[in-house]
Amino acid sequence: MLSPKTHGPLSGLVVIDLTRVLAGPYCTLMLADLGARVIKVEMPVLGDDARHVGPMIEDGQGGTISGYFFSINRNKESIALNLKLEADKVIFDKLLASADILVENFTPGTMARLGYDWDTVHARHPSLILASISGFGQTGPYRELPAYDMVVQAMGGVLSLTGEEGGPPTRVGVSIGDICAGMFGTIGIQAAIIERIRTGLGKHVDISMLDSQVALLENALVRYQAEGVVPGPIGSRHPSITPFGVFKAKDTYMVVAAGNDRIFPRLCEAISIPEVANDARFMTNLLRCEHHAALKVRIEQALAGRTANEWLKHLTALGIPCGPVNDIAGVMQDHQVKARGMLMSQLLPNGRPIITAGCAVQFAGESMPPATPAPALDQHREALLKELGI
Amino acid sequence: MLSPKTHGPLSGLVVIDLTRVLAGPYCTLMLADLGARVIKVEMPVLGDDARHVGPMIEDGQGGTISGYFFSINRNKESIALNLKLEADKVIFDKLLASADILVENFTPGTMARLGYDWDTVHARHPSLILASISGFGQTGPYRELPAYDMVVQAMGGVLSLTGEEGGPPTRVGVSIGDICAGMFGTIGIQAAIIERIRTGLGKHVDISMLDSQVALLENALVRYQAEGVVPGPIGSRHPSITPFGVFKAKDTYMVVAAGNDRIFPRLCEAISIPEVANDARFMTNLLRCEHHAALKVRIEQALAGRTANEWLKHLTALGIPCGPVNDIAGVMQDHQVKARGMLMSQLLPNGRPIITAGCAVQFAGESMPPATPAPALDQHREALLKELGI
Repeated sequence: MLSPKTHGPLSGLVVIDLTRVLAGPYCTLMLADLGARVIKVEMPVLGDDARHVGPMIEDGQGGTISGYFFSINRNKESIALNLKLEADKVIFDKLLASADILVENFTPGTMARLGYDWDTVHARHPSLILASISGFGQTGPYRELPAYDMVVQAMGGVLSLTGEEGGPPTRVGVSIGDICAGMFGTIGIQAAIIERIRTGLGKHVDISMLDSQVALLENALVRYQAEGVVPGPIGSRHPSITPFGVFKAKDTYMVVAAGNDRIFPRLCEAISIPEVANDARFMTNLLRCEHHAALKVRIEQALAGRTANEWLKHLTALGIPCGPVNDIAGVMQDHQVKARGMLMSQLLPNGRPIITAGCAVQFAGESMPPATPAPALDQHREALLKELGI
Repeated sequence: MLSPKTHGPLSGLVVIDLTRVLAGPYCTLMLADLGARVIKVEMPVLGDDARHVGPMIEDGQGGTISGYFFSINRNKESIALNLKLEADKVIFDKLLASADILVENFTPGTMARLGYDWDTVHARHPSLILASISGFGQTGPYRELPAYDMVVQAMGGVLSLTGEEGGPPTRVGVSIGDICAGMFGTIGIQAAIIERIRTGLGKHVDISMLDSQVALLENALVRYQAEGVVPGPIGSRHPSITPFGVFKAKDTYMVVAAGNDRIFPRLCEAISIPEVANDARFMTNLLRCEHHAALKVRIEQALAGRTANEWLKHLTALGIPCGPVNDIAGVMQDHQVKARGMLMSQLLPNGRPIITAGCAVQFAGESMPPATPAPALDQHREALLKELGI
């Protein structure tokens, strides 16, 4: 039997993790950060595909390792098993018998070919929860098609809303097609755990990356129905709140989010264009949305006199919502990001530290224990076999 | 005492919901969809600010209602209470005494001013979970600053990665600053429920919208550390997989995601440019990433001969990952989106149906019960007071 971890809200739970690349590993990363014991089961020799995705970093032994892999696999263990070999299946079955949750992100059909479809798994391990994360879900006409982040960002409509007005559709610069599916997976798994505590039975969590994109659309669907116009990309502004977006100051861009009718006159006062607050075109949020381009010109003329940092200090002191447009270097120096522990350090095999994003699920008065770095392929084989009595 | 709902994995749980606008309501929407009973406590007269955010829809009685509000408040009840009035606090306290979870997304400090800071709430209701979702979290130097989606998208670095190469930073076209914070909130609440089942004690979930953006950065942080170059926006392509992005066919854009070295030659064959697969610049993914612009020209020349739909049929039949760039009208007609039940209908007060995005957390073999539409302000006052014995 595998003993669970003893720290964190999900301590007591053991997760067997067949996932590769991003959506699944992101899901199990959150489970691991919250205290579950997560055991990655990887293909021998190659391992998780993410081990071969750049950026590659020298491992100090003449080879390279994937920095990408380190971003999303801390706090996990690894064992290499080939589920097409009977001897390895015996080990896998022992792992399952000791586990609470099995997570996979194969294309639907693969688990059945390996002999681990839901009906079989559920019959053998009635309390086990199976979570499947796939491009299109376990049902529907596209269920067997392959999908990647880019495909579902595009099919789910998010791409069509992102980019410059009149320009080509633009990818969201982070893989929200994968990541949000991973997050919904974590939500589904925890819901299934809560149900299992009542019923004793596991269930099959069925997450679709495409569904996950549609679930992000919030007001775009109702805007289309209410206005009859297909929403398109609109750069850095908001469709129904103005001013609420990126504006250029003397040196660089900054954000001003002063859309409501109480704050807008205070913004105009603060940037020395009080007359703009009384302009008939800008009196209400609805009117400002209509005349957003003219308003942007006036605001940027006013901001051109000082640097973004100067304006941010001034506006913040006056309680007007604003902020810097941080690049990645800026994020890594941000005082709030640091204070919240969102920059977590892990030791690479070459002995050097690498910073990855921390866990956004936090509990007041508690701090995350130090992370164990992402495992080497098959690193925990001996310890695991010993625990299982093999 | 309030009786919980009886259907869904989170049935048995009662949520008192003080949240407004998007991040908090998105969190409680997921709890409601999963079976928790969610009671919105809103300010009298005005209610949740989202009731006044467009698109506005005629209510059939001479007024208008917010379609936006309907997107994120189905399956909830509403009571209007002014927490600055003693009489209303008595009702609120009775609600809390009957609840499992209290969710709020005020600026930190507000709950204390209302008399409901964590220490007070925890002393009075030791098993109650408090979830706080705020711009910057309950700790750190910026904790008392106001924040909106746009501010945290910019501060957290996502904006700096989104947009055309060399162009201005671009907002993600959906409010992932709010929505992802809401999702992390749901994850934190469920983790706290699982812990409470062991310990009997509630805890304080502390979600920061800024943290939530940093948690999405996946490989950008390690790319910056490995390469020493600050990552910037790169349009619709992927930083380390090529070809993987949007390409223009004869009529419109489509996605091709054929980055790995096995699929790439099959793509070249399929679009009748087999010689490109043997071009020395394009032999490996690493080389293709370096020469992405030259490759894009070759691919778009090849695609120019047929429409996106023709190519998608052709490539799909050959198992090459690809997909349409759906606008919102396309999403609403997509067969997979429909088959997965991701277009949920609610009846507006004017008697007409409106489609909103369904719940992406699904369980195989189970279907979501029909949604009750978003409540009118204070709609459930009488029924709730009766249940509480007031």
